[in-house]
Amino acid sequence: MKIDGTPYRSVWRDENSPHIIHIFDQTKFPWALDILNLENRDQVAHAIRTMQVRGAPLIGAVAAYGLALALTRDASTEALERDAALLAETRPTAINLRWAIERMLDRLRPLPAAARTAAAFEEAAAICDEDVAVNEAIGQHGLELIRAIQSKKPEGQTINILTHCNAGWIATVDWGTALAPIYMAHDSGFKVHVWVDETRPRNQGALLTAWELGRHGVPHTVIADNAGGHLMQRKDVDLVIVGCDRVTRNGDVANKIGTYLKALAAHDNAVPFWVALPSSTIDWSLHDGVKDIPIEERNPIEVTHIHGRDENGQPATLQITPDGTPAANPAFDVTPARLVTGLLTERGPCDASQTGLERLFPERA
Amino acid sequence: MKIDGTPYRSVWRDENSPHIIHIFDQTKFPWALDILNLENRDQVAHAIRTMQVRGAPLIGAVAAYGLALALTRDASTEALERDAALLAETRPTAINLRWAIERMLDRLRPLPAAARTAAAFEEAAAICDEDVAVNEAIGQHGLELIRAIQSKKPEGQTINILTHCNAGWIATVDWGTALAPIYMAHDSGFKVHVWVDETRPRNQGALLTAWELGRHGVPHTVIADNAGGHLMQRKDVDLVIVGCDRVTRNGDVANKIGTYLKALAAHDNAVPFWVALPSSTIDWSLHDGVKDIPIEERNPIEVTHIHGRDENGQPATLQITPDGTPAANPAFDVTPARLVTGLLTERGPCDASQTGLERLFPERA
Repeated sequence: MKIDGTPYRSVWRDENSPHIIHIFDQTKFPWALDILNLENRDQVAHAIRTMQVRGAPLIGAVAAYGLALALTRDASTEALERDAALLAETRPTAINLRWAIERMLDRLRPLPAAARTAAAFEEAAAICDEDVAVNEAIGQHGLELIRAIQSKKPEGQTINILTHCNAGWIATVDWGTALAPIYMAHDSGFKVHVWVDETRPRNQGALLTAWELGRHGVPHTVIADNAGGHLMQRKDVDLVIVGCDRVTRNGDVANKIGTYLKALAAHDNAVPFWVALPSSTIDWSLHDGVKDIPIEERNPIEVTHIHGRDENGQPATLQITPDGTPAANPAFDVTPARLVTGLLTERGPCDASQTGLERLFPERA
Repeated sequence: MKIDGTPYRSVWRDENSPHIIHIFDQTKFPWALDILNLENRDQVAHAIRTMQVRGAPLIGAVAAYGLALALTRDASTEALERDAALLAETRPTAINLRWAIERMLDRLRPLPAAARTAAAFEEAAAICDEDVAVNEAIGQHGLELIRAIQSKKPEGQTINILTHCNAGWIATVDWGTALAPIYMAHDSGFKVHVWVDETRPRNQGALLTAWELGRHGVPHTVIADNAGGHLMQRKDVDLVIVGCDRVTRNGDVANKIGTYLKALAAHDNAVPFWVALPSSTIDWSLHDGVKDIPIEERNPIEVTHIHGRDENGQPATLQITPDGTPAANPAFDVTPARLVTGLLTERGPCDASQTGLERLFPERA
């Protein structure tokens, strides 16, 4: 997508130095547009752990490049397995990360060491290109969903869409998952307006989604995470659409903490609740999301302190709890399939159920 | 309750200057313990509007004193009605404010102007004393609730209670509503632990509830508002207890924005969801809370900017959304009675229903 007219992806290979990968430092958004150089495995692992890159699809793509960078130093089978394991463990909840690493391993293991590095960069690039194509397909299918909602509203009335966290183009290689249909609807002339959940504690909605939508010119309003239920009660939400970090075979959805609360409110107010995902987000090995998906516990300092910009325009951090206050910081929750209206994949929409998923992905049945 | 060993109320009359009322400036908590002098109607109205005092019961008590202060200048019937109307409109959602003003008017209207000022201070003091007694009774009834939950748990296991916003002693004249049972349980030797919802956008949980509980020594953990559903799914919450700003005759509950989402999660996970209130919070004239309770819209700057303490220990403000980002800030939501396990009043617990309320308050049936 474009930033001030210039098209970007969220991760790209340096044109002149092929062993340098570029990302935006997303911990600096929206106050600065810092482009980082990633040159080795540890820099990639650090970028994922500290959320300089975040968003399940983007983490997978960057980790794939991380493995390619690791191979430039040591392409032995031993190193390949070790580096793959290390990268796969940088964050526990998103499954795309492990999917991307497994895909890389499947391609690289059979090759002689000398052929691995080139193949790895090629495969990582393919993962990126496919992510863009997949998200574009998700966007097209989601556009039909929005068109259907529009057709039931009085002509000219705005469609209000609520989203949580950031599942936009900077959470993927391009387009985004949940935001792809919104960009396409906006570009197609639909009157869409987005309620942007702030998404505490890291404020990905207020910082990233608001920034993305603003740069693209999509009307939006930031709200406290607490406000969504009230807006749905007031009929001010026509559709909820979120991304996700892992979907089980039966359609349970792990996504940013707080998603479950919005799904409950949507269900209680008969608002459609859709989850957008590339199929690489599906964990076909799991059935019960609440029991089986590991939930990352992050540092409590993300709750007790907050980043922003001070009166002089400088990035700054404030303490927002009394001295010594304990805090807990689970980063994801699981929305049971029964609360999900449907899943929006690159192959189209389906029920959030084993039947629905297997109909769309018969090769997995 | 005590602050560092010294007992305080949240509002009190100056010992030497009887026409000066003292409150804490709650917008400065927990970084400073600033005691303000309120000497006239406009200072009181300002304190309520800017949330230097907040919490439905405390707002009522302070407004009552505000009317007394107004009468010291002009005790005519015309002034009485005008000042009462002005104070009643300082905030729209909490009903205790209007209840307190009505009670003052009932007492003062029949009196000759010369007798009104003394009577007004007397009545305001009575409202304060009764609030303390009422909250103590709520605490005792709530303690029984906690005792019953404890009896079903293995001995020695901690009781985890989730609360939203601040319904503690600084939201009332003393004791608090939702926190009164927790203080009593803690003081009686129960092992209680409180999950404190941050309560965006004004962070009354992270700032006020965490401070109150910490000063009293009650174990607690601050969480993002998004986290409560996940904790309930994990069976880490035994009880939710919140205060409220208005309860309709049928048991619908207006409380701080986000309460409804926690009620949905509690219902979905079979966690008891209780609402603590003095009976002055009941609006006997309303039946449908979602339709009929006016919801205050506050300044969007409360969403786009945040207060805290900087690295030098100084209070500071940060911008936490991109420049020019629109925000919306509804301050309350309504939890339908069907999601409320019970109401906890000074007369004891009851069902959140017209039948339940009228059984406890037959004089209103």
